[in-house]
Amino acid sequence: MPTAEEWSYYIPQLNFRVGDVEYNKNLIIDAIQSGQNDEVDLIIFPELALSGYPPRDLLYYSSFHQGLQQALDQIIEVITSSYVILGLPLYDKTKRLRNAAVILNSAGIKYTYFKTLLPDYDVFDESRYFYPNEDPGIVELDGVKIGLQICEDLWDHMWMHRIKVTKQQLQLGAELIINISASPYTLSKPENRLNLVRKQLEAHNANFIYVNLLGSQDDLVFDGRSFMVNKNGDLVYTAPAFRPSSDVIAGSVFNSKSINPDQYESIHQMESISAALQISLVDYLEKSGLTKSVLIALSGGIDSALTVTLATYALGSENVTAVYLPTSFSAKQSYMDSKQLCENLGIELLVIEIEDIRNMMETKLQELAVIDDSWSIANENIQSRIRGNLMMFLSNKLNKILLATGNKSEIATGYYTLYGDDSGGKNLLGDLYKTQVYELAKYFNREEEVIPESIITRPPSAELRPDQKDQDSLPDYSTLDEILYRFIDQYQSTEEIIAAGYDKETVKQVISLVMRNEFKRAQLVQTVKVSDRTFGFGRRFPIANQYRP
Amino acid sequence: MPTAEEWSYYIPQLNFRVGDVEYNKNLIIDAIQSGQNDEVDLIIFPELALSGYPPRDLLYYSSFHQGLQQALDQIIEVITSSYVILGLPLYDKTKRLRNAAVILNSAGIKYTYFKTLLPDYDVFDESRYFYPNEDPGIVELDGVKIGLQICEDLWDHMWMHRIKVTKQQLQLGAELIINISASPYTLSKPENRLNLVRKQLEAHNANFIYVNLLGSQDDLVFDGRSFMVNKNGDLVYTAPAFRPSSDVIAGSVFNSKSINPDQYESIHQMESISAALQISLVDYLEKSGLTKSVLIALSGGIDSALTVTLATYALGSENVTAVYLPTSFSAKQSYMDSKQLCENLGIELLVIEIEDIRNMMETKLQELAVIDDSWSIANENIQSRIRGNLMMFLSNKLNKILLATGNKSEIATGYYTLYGDDSGGKNLLGDLYKTQVYELAKYFNREEEVIPESIITRPPSAELRPDQKDQDSLPDYSTLDEILYRFIDQYQSTEEIIAAGYDKETVKQVISLVMRNEFKRAQLVQTVKVSDRTFGFGRRFPIANQYRP
Repeated sequence: MPTAEEWSYYIPQLNFRVGDVEYNKNLIIDAIQSGQNDEVDLIIFPELALSGYPPRDLLYYSSFHQGLQQALDQIIEVITSSYVILGLPLYDKTKRLRNAAVILNSAGIKYTYFKTLLPDYDVFDESRYFYPNEDPGIVELDGVKIGLQICEDLWDHMWMHRIKVTKQQLQLGAELIINISASPYTLSKPENRLNLVRKQLEAHNANFIYVNLLGSQDDLVFDGRSFMVNKNGDLVYTAPAFRPSSDVIAGSVFNSKSINPDQYESIHQMESISAALQISLVDYLEKSGLTKSVLIALSGGIDSALTVTLATYALGSENVTAVYLPTSFSAKQSYMDSKQLCENLGIELLVIEIEDIRNMMETKLQELAVIDDSWSIANENIQSRIRGNLMMFLSNKLNKILLATGNKSEIATGYYTLYGDDSGGKNLLGDLYKTQVYELAKYFNREEEVIPESIITRPPSAELRPDQKDQDSLPDYSTLDEILYRFIDQYQSTEEIIAAGYDKETVKQVISLVMRNEFKRAQLVQTVKVSDRTFGFGRRFPIANQYRP
Repeated sequence: MPTAEEWSYYIPQLNFRVGDVEYNKNLIIDAIQSGQNDEVDLIIFPELALSGYPPRDLLYYSSFHQGLQQALDQIIEVITSSYVILGLPLYDKTKRLRNAAVILNSAGIKYTYFKTLLPDYDVFDESRYFYPNEDPGIVELDGVKIGLQICEDLWDHMWMHRIKVTKQQLQLGAELIINISASPYTLSKPENRLNLVRKQLEAHNANFIYVNLLGSQDDLVFDGRSFMVNKNGDLVYTAPAFRPSSDVIAGSVFNSKSINPDQYESIHQMESISAALQISLVDYLEKSGLTKSVLIALSGGIDSALTVTLATYALGSENVTAVYLPTSFSAKQSYMDSKQLCENLGIELLVIEIEDIRNMMETKLQELAVIDDSWSIANENIQSRIRGNLMMFLSNKLNKILLATGNKSEIATGYYTLYGDDSGGKNLLGDLYKTQVYELAKYFNREEEVIPESIITRPPSAELRPDQKDQDSLPDYSTLDEILYRFIDQYQSTEEIIAAGYDKETVKQVISLVMRNEFKRAQLVQTVKVSDRTFGFGRRFPIANQYRP
């Protein structure tokens, strides 16, 4: 009888597309043929590879399932010598939809596994679509006892789950656990996954293969980073993070010693975030079938500077256009810095003076009998929305996607103009607190000055009135971000945060700002998830609400 | 032993507030005292009455649960003679959160029921927060066997549920079923609820009390309309729709004949929609603690005319301001009609000519070397966004909430300007197809001409270029709306719709428009749910996607 150590494995790390079953099928067929040419025993694809993840309400259309079924049949046709593990949505015999993993060989479907634990927290809503399995079980493949599982099945410690999938499979004698996942990237996730696998295997005699999806869909990034752990808990193989790969791995690797764990998780946190943001931008344009080029309004501040830098690294300088739209409140330095930045990056910079438009609008509004002549935030917002208007015109006209530039601290506190500086199709920095924005900017400058130093060192300002500074309206960013992190990412309430040593009035002010700006965030442009709690679908609050937790 | 027919019931139909536990507690205490003064046996409140529904991520804050616990203790203190059934979030002994219904008396909690079936479809996401019950059971209260259940427990025919709650309770001998609900209004919902109750009771010897929430939270409206059905399936009591009530009902009503069913569900569909939209607007302002007044940009078209009419009926003419912002493309008739409408409604009309601002922006943009001088949709959008900018200024400055006016047909096809005419805090018509907008407008004109006839009869136009008509870009609205209804509300795919007799190219064009405008809808202003499939949280599609179902 062979053992898992005697097989060979092919774990192609591919970038599938949600909804594009034809494209996914072709990727899968090419990979199967390549694996079979290398005479591998087992080819493994991630969760819902054939449909892409997450397919959401596409699952409600019968035509989508017809396409999936046809693709599955065509995939089976090319299988000659290998076993193939493939994730896809599949109806069971009672016509209930399942999140399934099938084991295929040349004869067809040899084994079907249905996902046992369905996640419904954070960005997940799988109970909306799928019926859960209650008996995970194992399968014997040419004498090798395999515990096949899908993503959440590994995370059985969560409060809502009652079945211990891995434990059951190990008790049934599984000598190899294979988990196919679509596990979204966050800063803490890679370490969590590896620790979890090791914990599940503790005191058991089994090897583990963890296969993760690669690529970005909307605000989610899947970092790939598939890995293998042996019976001793040693990490014996890892695929790269954020990149495709096509390694064939001999099962004898399970008998080897641990590789350097740096290969798996210990790349610089900022390098990891930078890679996630870039793949998200590239995939957004690519998977939407949109133009490859983007447009960014530069203010002279750190957020737009970092956004334009990320976009240039991701898309190339020929695909990035910057626009500077000053009023009389804009400092000369802001222009100089923007110009220097664009020179450093080798990108085009357009300038549109908007002071005269602003003046005409202000004058026209002053003429209304109902308007007094006091200056207020309403006046500040006019400028931001003129910029939004002109940028959207350029976006439409030049067929370039506008990127919004607000960071998580601003989005949290509502310190931005709805329909103004938040306009666009994508926001790369929306899940990074201001302090993380600075850190990432410095990371880009680690070898040479890409982002002009004065952009990083000048006090941040929206430049919407004379001599304005962010800190006129907000606590200093290091304090602000700590309070926000506790309130938003950790769901700590006012009293808990005050008890942790923060100033009572500051905490109350910050929490009030967060809670009363829910209506703005309800219209938020898509961001990129890199934290455990990202504004958007994974964080849900009532809008009409006066309660402050 | 008493029977359910010998008891008296108090079913106060109250408008609770999400998050405002103090407010809800006071409403509940006042109602309990009133019921006890009337010596009723049983006082029944709806699902999650104490927290408001849906509380969403407020449930993740420990301070919120502390407040709930304190409120519950204070409620118990005022109970002297009646039983009270109250819905609230409650931790079980294993620290897992439950959607609970407690039966209280002067001694405290006499019985605790946990919701068995959790909905995760459409707008629901209860598995995100709550742990489900597996054994509904019944409770005996002074000799009366009661099957207590919560909302979804009644809807056990849905594909994802495996426990038949009502059937189990009836088999255990329940002679009275009490369902406390927070069931969102849609046009078809009242009839569905009643039919479902009758079906569940078929061939069983039990009475039924259905208690529903009243009021609006964000895009949901709860229509109240609590009712009682006797053992014969006769409707013997109904509370009003969309209004508070405080009826004490003698149990002998179960022995009476059916009331006129018109009292329950057969109000005019348009009256029903009108009431839902109005309560949603009033509650949005009230529950947000915002101003009571609103601002609407009138175009001379039907959507803004109907919106301003609904707002005036809901808030009173003193709380509604209309603004007309013409360019050279605006027809004289549009102004005349808008003026007449405002006179009919008795509301203020401001006029701001924006042609010069438009010209200045156009000229400035033409000066850019990268811009050619051809006219495109990009140019059309400039005007719409100037209006958005000025309206948001007025909203900020005058402290009035801006209402967006787009209908479901426009939102579906992307026939509106992002950050332009969709700007605002609330959109009343976003879940009504254009044909329904006409129907509702005619309903308002049923007795006298509120909305000038020419607004209803003129061909619809965005007036963003000379002689523009909606039907230059879209199929006629009656065909369009039928295709949209099939594709969006019924999830029929392209082939199914074509097979139903629609023109192939038209169907493909419409579906392509819907699918490629997902990015716009991702930033959609809050609407009001009146259909089974409303744009927003209850409909979830990938943004980066080129698949057409």
